[in-house]
Amino acid sequence: MEKFDYSSGKIVFKKGDKADGFYIVGSGKVGIFFPTNHEMIEPDIVLGPTEIFGEMGVIDTAPRMATARALENTTVIYVSEKDFEKKLAESDMIVRGVMAILSERLRSLQKRR
Amino acid sequence: MEKFDYSSGKIVFKKGDKADGFYIVGSGKVGIFFPTNHEMIEPDIVLGPTEIFGEMGVIDTAPRMATARALENTTVIYVSEKDFEKKLAESDMIVRGVMAILSERLRSLQKRR
Repeated sequence: MEKFDYSSGKIVFKKGDKADGFYIVGSGKVGIFFPTNHEMIEPDIVLGPTEIFGEMGVIDTAPRMATARALENTTVIYVSEKDFEKKLAESDMIVRGVMAILSERLRSLQKRR
Repeated sequence: MEKFDYSSGKIVFKKGDKADGFYIVGSGKVGIFFPTNHEMIEPDIVLGPTEIFGEMGVIDTAPRMATARALENTTVIYVSEKDFEKKLAESDMIVRGVMAILSERLRSLQKRR
């Protein structure tokens, strides 16, 4: 896990970027802009401390589906797929099983859309 | 967690039943029959040892969406919502966070269908 600082307005990731991990907001605010949001002035979702974004990056191998931008000076913690797998491996077998099945179900639901 | 035995052909749960936990196949085989499967002869999904079913029972409060039936003499382990919450509470904060966000996302995707 790594800590990154973004000054206000900076892009954390943009639609189409390779996705191999997710982020947790440490301090500040992150805006998520859906692909349908062409003007990118008002974010579709605003996330604050302890909130997670980009989590699909550990669920499937598809590129980022949205753009994430710091709305003020922001610190995020990046959790790579590898970091997360390690945490999962240390988890209870049943928690791991449910995580796997939820991921699988999400993948198949997303594919159908 | 509790162990239950079902002889071949017995119903584990049926569509519309209250859902407050999920199951892990211990031994034997369980068939999942979707609501569109009116004859209920061939299951839509067949699950074997270590596979999980009924997991939506810990994700939302909706009743069972399908019917689960033992296809042979079968032992299942029932994990109640409470059991699962306890296991989650003992898990890493990040695993917990990702589980929460995946559940939330599944809930909203299911609602839209």
